[in-house]
Amino acid sequence: MQSLIVIKIGGNIIDDETLLSQFIKLVAQINLPVILIHGGGKLATNLAKDLNVPQQMIDGRRITDAETLKIVTMVYAGYINKQIVAKLQSNNVNAFGLCGADGNLVKANKRNHPNIDYGFVGDVVSTSDGVLAMLLSNNFVPVVAPITHNSKGQLLNTNADTIANEIATSLAKSFKVSLVYCFDKVGVLKDVNNENSVIKVIHQNNIQLLKESQVIHSGMLPKIDNALQAVSKGVNKVILGHAIDIIQLIEGTKGTTICTE
Amino acid sequence: MQSLIVIKIGGNIIDDETLLSQFIKLVAQINLPVILIHGGGKLATNLAKDLNVPQQMIDGRRITDAETLKIVTMVYAGYINKQIVAKLQSNNVNAFGLCGADGNLVKANKRNHPNIDYGFVGDVVSTSDGVLAMLLSNNFVPVVAPITHNSKGQLLNTNADTIANEIATSLAKSFKVSLVYCFDKVGVLKDVNNENSVIKVIHQNNIQLLKESQVIHSGMLPKIDNALQAVSKGVNKVILGHAIDIIQLIEGTKGTTICTE
Repeated sequence: MQSLIVIKIGGNIIDDETLLSQFIKLVAQINLPVILIHGGGKLATNLAKDLNVPQQMIDGRRITDAETLKIVTMVYAGYINKQIVAKLQSNNVNAFGLCGADGNLVKANKRNHPNIDYGFVGDVVSTSDGVLAMLLSNNFVPVVAPITHNSKGQLLNTNADTIANEIATSLAKSFKVSLVYCFDKVGVLKDVNNENSVIKVIHQNNIQLLKESQVIHSGMLPKIDNALQAVSKGVNKVILGHAIDIIQLIEGTKGTTICTE
Repeated sequence: MQSLIVIKIGGNIIDDETLLSQFIKLVAQINLPVILIHGGGKLATNLAKDLNVPQQMIDGRRITDAETLKIVTMVYAGYINKQIVAKLQSNNVNAFGLCGADGNLVKANKRNHPNIDYGFVGDVVSTSDGVLAMLLSNNFVPVVAPITHNSKGQLLNTNADTIANEIATSLAKSFKVSLVYCFDKVGVLKDVNNENSVIKVIHQNNIQLLKESQVIHSGMLPKIDNALQAVSKGVNKVILGHAIDIIQLIEGTKGTTICTE
């Protein structure tokens, strides 16, 4: 099977234009098909502040009222997405930006929570492999913004980590997928204050031991559980590390690799 | 050759959510391949006002400083584009939104004017047929936002009428193209105050007569000259009329048709 690299980048790169440009130059060096999925960062929060739209976060999720949905649609699917596409194009990468509504790439349902009204937050229902396969087979690099739709005309704000996970899992049927989650650390650290304490490999069979011995910082557990879920569903490996190490993360010489065996 | 309908809609439809929804229901009834190109409308102006970014228009073109470019990118390529895509999807039309940077669809150069600094306004250099042909052959309906790029990482604000013209002309090599410009009138009127005075057909050979006899309102002349240019470059016909008559415009029973003979 052909290899495919699915990369998710978050706010720490998107908010820093110099870092983002450096990262994009590195992406241009990857000699394998790539899909890039981006989150939001502080830009939406800043715009909301400028427009006097109060923001409320619960467990890291943005409560998305109608005004906030408009803001995140503008910032994620508009400004950030097209900035990344234009920067990739300037590095001779034929990038193609889209969100979950485009070509029905990601269908979602409005979150229905017993106690919290998340507003226009969407939970993924399905992804369309066809759209991405079409773009990849025409040598485009898809750049995906975390806005989805419900097929009834409603756009929804959806977690980019989840979209990356769903897309990687779905494409694992046709590709040997490496899913790279870029975050603000160089990998999963044994000692959160020591960048030299990266755990190089986590297997399904040693995760329980690592959890029980409390070697893994509790903040990392959701990321690792998501990663294990992806590999259990056919993703070849999940890699956690810093975006600026993207080449080494793919080579396996930096970051933390999570795999089945 | 296969028929293709290229439709450009402007602010009078985009700014009115009820009209936009009605128009989109009609687009869903068109049984031919369609490309939809949208302009901006008042939303960008309103957002600029809310953000205290002063706006200056010269001859109907928006002077686009860095802050204004950010605003139009967010509004055109983000909010408006994805709203239209989601509404089309809810009408079972597999719409696919993109801007000129995506897949290098529209390359432009920053406008270089001897007396006026237009800022980040782009004049079209080239369009890529491949991107639209790929989407059309996969039964997607491309929805194009009027943001372009210069291949050097710079996004540019570009006139949607011009983009529609360039795309229609370029695709005329492979399709029998009808280019429909929707505006706020039911067609080109002999008497601007009388909606029953539509000039049904304008040919290359009678335009001079219409101009000399001052039958055509001067405000319409640039649109008609653009239309004539498109038909002289191979577009089968250009139709001018109101978006709400889109079905009749395509059928030829309403609006003004501009053709070579």
